[in-house]
Amino acid sequence: MSRARARDRGGRERLVVIGADAAGMSAASQARRLRGPDELEIVAFERGHFASFSACGIPYWVGGDVAGRDELIARTPGEHRARDIDLRMRTEVTEIDVAAGRVRARDVDSGAESWTSYDKLVIATGARPVRPDMPGADAPGVHGVQTLDDGEALLGSLARARGSRAVVVGAGYIGVEMAEALIKRGYEVTVVNRGKEPMSTLDPDMGRLVHRAMTGLGITMVDDAEVTKVLTGDDGRVRAVATEDAEYPADVVVLGIGAHPETTLARAAGLPLGPHGGLLTDRAMRVRGHENIWAGGDCVEVLDLVSGLYRYVPLGTHANKHGQVIGTNAGGGYATFPGVVGTAVSKVCDLEIARTGLREKDARRVGLRYEAVTVESTSRAGYYPGASPMTVKMLAEHRTGRLLGVQIVGREGAAKRVDIAAVALTAGMTVEQMTSLDLGYAPPFSPVWDPVLVAARKATAKVRATAT
Amino acid sequence: MSRARARDRGGRERLVVIGADAAGMSAASQARRLRGPDELEIVAFERGHFASFSACGIPYWVGGDVAGRDELIARTPGEHRARDIDLRMRTEVTEIDVAAGRVRARDVDSGAESWTSYDKLVIATGARPVRPDMPGADAPGVHGVQTLDDGEALLGSLARARGSRAVVVGAGYIGVEMAEALIKRGYEVTVVNRGKEPMSTLDPDMGRLVHRAMTGLGITMVDDAEVTKVLTGDDGRVRAVATEDAEYPADVVVLGIGAHPETTLARAAGLPLGPHGGLLTDRAMRVRGHENIWAGGDCVEVLDLVSGLYRYVPLGTHANKHGQVIGTNAGGGYATFPGVVGTAVSKVCDLEIARTGLREKDARRVGLRYEAVTVESTSRAGYYPGASPMTVKMLAEHRTGRLLGVQIVGREGAAKRVDIAAVALTAGMTVEQMTSLDLGYAPPFSPVWDPVLVAARKATAKVRATAT
Repeated sequence: MSRARARDRGGRERLVVIGADAAGMSAASQARRLRGPDELEIVAFERGHFASFSACGIPYWVGGDVAGRDELIARTPGEHRARDIDLRMRTEVTEIDVAAGRVRARDVDSGAESWTSYDKLVIATGARPVRPDMPGADAPGVHGVQTLDDGEALLGSLARARGSRAVVVGAGYIGVEMAEALIKRGYEVTVVNRGKEPMSTLDPDMGRLVHRAMTGLGITMVDDAEVTKVLTGDDGRVRAVATEDAEYPADVVVLGIGAHPETTLARAAGLPLGPHGGLLTDRAMRVRGHENIWAGGDCVEVLDLVSGLYRYVPLGTHANKHGQVIGTNAGGGYATFPGVVGTAVSKVCDLEIARTGLREKDARRVGLRYEAVTVESTSRAGYYPGASPMTVKMLAEHRTGRLLGVQIVGREGAAKRVDIAAVALTAGMTVEQMTSLDLGYAPPFSPVWDPVLVAARKATAKVRATAT
Repeated sequence: MSRARARDRGGRERLVVIGADAAGMSAASQARRLRGPDELEIVAFERGHFASFSACGIPYWVGGDVAGRDELIARTPGEHRARDIDLRMRTEVTEIDVAAGRVRARDVDSGAESWTSYDKLVIATGARPVRPDMPGADAPGVHGVQTLDDGEALLGSLARARGSRAVVVGAGYIGVEMAEALIKRGYEVTVVNRGKEPMSTLDPDMGRLVHRAMTGLGITMVDDAEVTKVLTGDDGRVRAVATEDAEYPADVVVLGIGAHPETTLARAAGLPLGPHGGLLTDRAMRVRGHENIWAGGDCVEVLDLVSGLYRYVPLGTHANKHGQVIGTNAGGGYATFPGVVGTAVSKVCDLEIARTGLREKDARRVGLRYEAVTVESTSRAGYYPGASPMTVKMLAEHRTGRLLGVQIVGREGAAKRVDIAAVALTAGMTVEQMTSLDLGYAPPFSPVWDPVLVAARKATAKVRATAT
């Protein structure tokens, strides 16, 4: 089929990309590196105003750490076009016709529609933020922070706000990062969180440390609470949010309550979706059962190498890797994305937060018995100036001692230390094997036993003690 | 034999430890944790004034980052004795009688000698600093920095020095750290280095970056030069060092030219030594061929897991691990130290320096063909404030792509990033496997492709391109 179509275009294949952010444009760029415009035509459709931007950078732009929107744009549409990628902005794909190998696209401004055939297709439609289904959720002053348009709208709203009270709904990565951003801009910040502790990607005992730090920064934490309503003033703008129990005055509201895979098109086209609603692919990022369709980024599910189950982990770093793998394969090469171990890092002011692998509840859910230990150590040799406390929690499989997960909360050096565990998880190491890891040591960088090694020693002792 | 002796002491075994620093006292403490004083008597001999101190901290004490000597003492003799370890300070072991299972010790002050029998023996005699065999090497004002006594002597010398010119001989870890310390104390520092670049534990192209940074700090670098003579003034104190070509005025001289294993006793006792003069042990840190003798720390050679050869790597972090393993085994448990991958980190002011695995010349020496790549990246997302340049060099085995080594030079976050490669080396990963490592990403901590992943991608491409 593909060759037949390509023949119609004088031997030149056409690669169509839906969605021009990290995964889509990494794929397009990598395919272009491998195959020149004489061999491969690349057409990319993007319904928004921007391509290839860093959504992860939006909180830092809002907080003033990043000077302007354009700094978050990795590559402009013009730069893509200069590399012979036919990038069509403000053009939304409305249908994938898998049988005929074509997509229908609509010009967002004019409404004009047309079909484009493909030999190879990349689906990189990203994520759809969760918008709570409640009164007032669309009122002026209520903002998501997924796109650069969102960021601009929020900054505009902050400029117009009459007061300086902000409510952040949700206390995951986006929630805590936005809380920091708003604190930096001088707002009184209230975070309304469904859970007992912020950062539900951590176990609650580790989330507690984040809670304490956020409170210490002057952030008001409302735990165990769900926003039921956004209240507006006479001018229609937000003036407060309400939970079942209370009202919280708000001049601006930021929603950070997660995202779902944007797979409306894929679903309509009959492509295979997983339990979390994301596209299912093989290791080459090919959509299962479809030789010439790839998918990557926030619209796919990924294999969790620790649990063996598929998960939904919308992160820019995975999207970039997916794009690289897709582009290599679509460009005629060979590459795979084996899966994730669930690493994520964040910070709220100078508190660094990191996790990888399974939490206690993940281990229980997949039926793994585990031993959990928590240790207190320091970022540098205790006697070296600036040494700060660091808490490391480690989970190991009961009896076998296989590393299952690590969570770290601390100041400088806490976040990226989780990479040690991420590599060890990938390699399937036991916690006992980890005790002899040859990690970098010098007094300004670590105690003589790195905090991760201290945790591994304690976990090893517990595994041994409970093995019989 | 051992049981016979223990019977003579009413069933209580005796563990004798020679050398009461990191390896020796970690071993003693761990053995004590596993077996109480009713079962195991522990006697430790130390010829110096201090036990359990952090030699790695001396440069920071001299530089003023660490307030005083006592902060570098992890545990005092009194604390050890409170844990029922019979620690005999200023008592030098002068002979090991392996056949009879006893050691002869001499009280350094009184000269009195006596024999002590052992059921189990731990040799932790440490390292002997290289002292150049040249005129004036022992003159007042010339200092090593291996012990706390050395540190005190140097600080005394700095207090008495007439001027503010310091010469550091050697540009390895100790040399660069001492150069920083002396700069911080306001000295004009000259570093005389045998090699073309400082940090010969790096490849010269990476050492070049350190050279540039040191010069930028106002340190005078004299490369490719050997000190032939220390010149003294009328008062007998150092006044300059001479190389073949020139003289360098010096009010104080610091020697940082490496160390040898201190194995005089072991050699005299006929114990097995390796090519670098260190004791040879098995993975349980037992001296080869000797059921009841263990050795660890700076007096042993360690297996390099990357090259498969024995190396001499005197580092406190290994000494502590050795002690832990020895104490477990001597205390009736089971533990192993599988070897090292050659990780080391350091800094000179805010320049961080890290290495692990093989350098180009190591790979050549062991007959491994390799591909080497170097990439420039940044410590944080390029748009995030404080992002600083980071250079990563990666070596992969020709054709197979097995990771062989990584060197990193940069500012914040460069040093501990080498841990990613240390774990990957331990796991025997290929550079291609590394490209999909799930490392922590957020704009304050890393670009979306971590610098180590950027290097792994480039190395993968080179391995693939040269494989056929």
